[in-house]
Amino acid sequence: MYHPRQVSATPIAAGKIRHPDVAALDLATIMRTVGDPVRLAIVRLVADGAEHSCSDLQAALSIPASTGSYHLRLLREAGVTRTRADGTARLISLRRDDLEARFPGLVDVLTRS
Amino acid sequence: MYHPRQVSATPIAAGKIRHPDVAALDLATIMRTVGDPVRLAIVRLVADGAEHSCSDLQAALSIPASTGSYHLRLLREAGVTRTRADGTARLISLRRDDLEARFPGLVDVLTRS
Repeated sequence: MYHPRQVSATPIAAGKIRHPDVAALDLATIMRTVGDPVRLAIVRLVADGAEHSCSDLQAALSIPASTGSYHLRLLREAGVTRTRADGTARLISLRRDDLEARFPGLVDVLTRS
Repeated sequence: MYHPRQVSATPIAAGKIRHPDVAALDLATIMRTVGDPVRLAIVRLVADGAEHSCSDLQAALSIPASTGSYHLRLLREAGVTRTRADGTARLISLRRDDLEARFPGLVDVLTRS
């Protein structure tokens, strides 16, 4: 089971975008999360290493904003992607280094097949 | 979506154990299927290349037969494992070559992390 931030040394500021630590990444959780065609497509889009806005990703996949937000939240909570606030925009990137450190080869499998 | 054997050149014999063709293997389906702690544990047990009986796998994981049958069916239907009938026994093995052919590196990611 996936337990995000069971122990946190610092209080969570209101509105802070939370990401699991590298040590908390769980392979089964990640596999389950990317095992969805829309989320797998998002992973492949952000695998270019750039930050992508939610709206750009939603447009690229022709999905409504509510659907996109849902999938992006699951990817973030599983530790696959990082979400950064830039004003009112949310910029999404792949946590490639973190994923590679914990599960070597996983990003390659997800993006080259 | 996963559509096993949409087109089949040969009739399915009654009781035949069905497996998706290599060409029908779908990465999202496989990821979703192995994205469960019990099924991931089964994959790691059969990654030794041997055939394992259902009962041995269930005993190794301390799960009831009904639970084991359910998880083994999902793994077989996703194309992760092969099930062979030997009398009344069912022997399970990893489709390592098929998985490697379609998704190079996947088995390594699942088994070494």
